[in-house]
Amino acid sequence: MTEQLPPTTVLGLGSMGSALAEALITAGHPTTVWNRSATRPEPRGSTRAATVPDAVAATDLVLICLLDHGSVRDVLGTAGPLNGKTIVNLTSCTPAQARDLAAWATERGAAYLDGGIMAVPPMIATPAAFILYSGSQAAFDQARPVLDRFGESHYLGTDPGSAALYDLSLLSGMYGLLAGILHAYAVVGSEGVAAVSFAPLLTRWLTTMVGFAASAAEQIDRGDYSVGVVSNLAMQSAGFPELLELAEHSGISPELIAPLGPLMARRVADGHGHEDLTGVIELLKKGADHE
Amino acid sequence: MTEQLPPTTVLGLGSMGSALAEALITAGHPTTVWNRSATRPEPRGSTRAATVPDAVAATDLVLICLLDHGSVRDVLGTAGPLNGKTIVNLTSCTPAQARDLAAWATERGAAYLDGGIMAVPPMIATPAAFILYSGSQAAFDQARPVLDRFGESHYLGTDPGSAALYDLSLLSGMYGLLAGILHAYAVVGSEGVAAVSFAPLLTRWLTTMVGFAASAAEQIDRGDYSVGVVSNLAMQSAGFPELLELAEHSGISPELIAPLGPLMARRVADGHGHEDLTGVIELLKKGADHE
Ligand SMILES: NC(=O)c1ccc[n+]([C@@H]2O[C@H](COP(=O)([O-])OP(=O)(O)OC[C@H]3O[C@@H](n4cnc5c(N)ncnc54)[C@H](OP(=O)(O)O)[C@@H]3O)[C@@H](O)[C@H]2O)c1
Ligand SMILES: NC(=O)c1ccc[n+]([C@@H]2O[C@H](COP(=O)([O-])OP(=O)(O)OC[C@H]3O[C@@H](n4cnc5c(N)ncnc54)[C@H](OP(=O)(O)O)[C@@H]3O)[C@@H](O)[C@H]2O)c1
Repeated sequence: MTEQLPPTTVLGLGSMGSALAEALITAGHPTTVWNRSATRPEPRGSTRAATVPDAVAATDLVLICLLDHGSVRDVLGTAGPLNGKTIVNLTSCTPAQARDLAAWATERGAAYLDGGIMAVPPMIATPAAFILYSGSQAAFDQARPVLDRFGESHYLGTDPGSAALYDLSLLSGMYGLLAGILHAYAVVGSEGVAAVSFAPLLTRWLTTMVGFAASAAEQIDRGDYSVGVVSNLAMQSAGFPELLELAEHSGISPELIAPLGPLMARRVADGHGHEDLTGVIELLKKGADHE
Repeated sequence: MTEQLPPTTVLGLGSMGSALAEALITAGHPTTVWNRSATRPEPRGSTRAATVPDAVAATDLVLICLLDHGSVRDVLGTAGPLNGKTIVNLTSCTPAQARDLAAWATERGAAYLDGGIMAVPPMIATPAAFILYSGSQAAFDQARPVLDRFGESHYLGTDPGSAALYDLSLLSGMYGLLAGILHAYAVVGSEGVAAVSFAPLLTRWLTTMVGFAASAAEQIDRGDYSVGVVSNLAMQSAGFPELLELAEHSGISPELIAPLGPLMARRVADGHGHEDLTGVIELLKKGADHE
C-alpha cells in the first residue's frame, strides 16, 4: 500500500495553470482541475470538475492560476463554502490586492497563501523555477510538499503582500531588460543585421551586466553612489544622446530607452557627475526635489 | 635578446584609458601616454608625452580613449602629421561619426580602426571583456597583438560604422536592464526591503530572463511572433498596470518602465494578444501604422 500524495485542485488551465497541473500529475498527486471554457483540454490523468464549487469541494488544497486578480475574485465569489480550505493564489496581483483577498478568505475560514511564480511555464518543475510565497505560515507548511513540485519555494513571511511586492518588482526589472533587448534588435535590424547573429553578443553582454544588480545594491543601501565608481555618470550621460541619435537615424523610436536620459542629465546637473549611475534611483522617489 | 613588443600610444587617461595603458604595460609593451590635464597620474612604467603631437610621433599605433567624439575631434585636430599612423579609436561614437572620422583619417594617410569596448575598466585584460572592431582590416591585423591584451577581439568588417552600431545597440540593451534594476530596487526599498537582501533574487531572475534575447531573435528574424508562445501578450498586458499601480502606491515614479505598457496594449488592440511580447518591436519601427 503506497501513501497517497496530497490531492490538489487547480483552478485555471491557461499556459501556467496547465503546467502546474501537469507537474502535479507527473509527481503522482491526485489532481482535480477546472477551467472557465471547456475548450481548453485537461491534462491527461487529471479529474475535471464541471463547476467551481465541485472543484473546490474535491480537495482541501486549492491552487488558483487565472488571468488576473479580477478573474480570481469572480471565480472565488462563486466557489461556495471555503471553511477549512487552504487557498494558494498563484495569479499575479498587487500587494494590496493580496492583502484584501487574504482578509476575505480568512473571514470565510480559509487559510490564504499568496504566490508569485518566477518562471515561464516550460520552466515549471525544473531547477530554473522559483516561486515566492507569503501569508499563512501554516498553509505554506501544509502545502509545501505540493508547492515544491513546481520549483524552489521561497517563503517570505506572514504578510500576504510580500510575495506580490517581490514578484512585481522582479517583473518590473525584467520588463526593463526585455524593453532594452527589443530596442537593441530594432536598431541593428534596421541596418540589416539578423537578430540571430546579434543574439550571442547581446546575451553575453547582458549576462555580464546583470552584475550591476549586486554592485548597485550596496551603493543603494549606503545611499552613497561615489564609492568604487568605474563608469562615472558624467561620461555615461555624455554618451547617452548617441543612443537616441542612432535610433532616430535608424528610424527606430527611442521611447523604450529614452526616459533614463533626462534623469542622468539631472543628476549630473545636481553635481553627481563623478558618482555612479545608481544615484538616479534618488530621482525616482516621489517628492524628490526634481518634482 | 628579447623581441620588443609593439610600442603603443594611448591618448586619454580617464578610467578606461588608464585601464588600457596598464594592460599594455603589464604585458610588456612600451607605452606612451598623454592626457589633457596633468592632474591624472600616468600608469607606472609608461612614458608621458607633454603634447599630443609628441604622443602621436612616439609610436605608429595610436589608441584613443576620451570622453566623447567631440573630444576625439579636438585632440586629433592638434595631433600633427598622421601619415603612416594606425589610429584605433576606442571612444564611444555613432556609426556616422565613426565613418566620418575614418574618411578624415584616411585622407591624412592614416589607417583607421574603430572600437567599442564591451567592458568596464576592471574587466579589461580579463576573460570577461570583449571589444568590437571595424574599419581597416590591415589596421586590425597589425594592431591585433596589442588589442588582444584588452579582451576578446571581435572584428566586424571594413565598414568603420559597424563597431559603433553594435556597441551602441548593446549599450541600449544594457540601459534597459539597468533602468529595470533601478526601478525594482526603488519599489522594494520603499517598502523597507534592503537592496542587498533583494539582490540575489533579482540577479537570479534577470540572469534567467536574459534567455529572451535568444528566443526573441528567432521570432524577430521570422517576423512571426505566434510560434512557441508561453507567455501570451494579452496576459502580460493585463498584468502590466499592476506594476505601475504598485510603483505609484509606493511613491516611486514609474517613468523608467512605463513606456512598454502602451505598446503592449496597442499590439493587443491590433489583434496580437495571442502572440509573444516580441511583436512589440514592430511598433518601434517609425512609419509603422501607429504613428
Ligand atoms: N505564462 C507565464 O509566463 C507566467 C509566468 C509567471 C506567472 N504567470 C501568471 O499566471 C497567471 C496565468 O497566466 P497564463 O499564462 O496561464 O495565462 P493564459 O494562458 O492567458 O490563461 C488565462 C486563464 O485565465 C482564465 N480566465 C481569464 N479570465 C477569467 C475569468 N473572468 N473567469 C475565469 N477564468 C478566467 C482563462 O480561462 P479561459 O480558458 O476560459 O479563457 C485561462 O484559464 C497570470 O496571473 C500570470 O501573471 C504566468
Ligand atoms: N568607463 C567605462 O565603463 C567604459 C566602458 C566602455 C567604454 N567606455 C568608453 O571609454 C571612453 C572614456 O571613458 P572613461 O570612463 O575613461 O571616461 P572618464 O574617466 O570620464 O575620462 C574622460 C577622459 O576624456 C578626457 N577628455 C574629456 N574631454 C576632453 C577634451 N575636450 N579634450 C581632451 N581630453 C578630453 C579626460 O581628460 P581630463 O583628465 O583632462 O578631463 C579624460 O582623460 C568613453 O567614450 C566611454 O564611452 C567607458
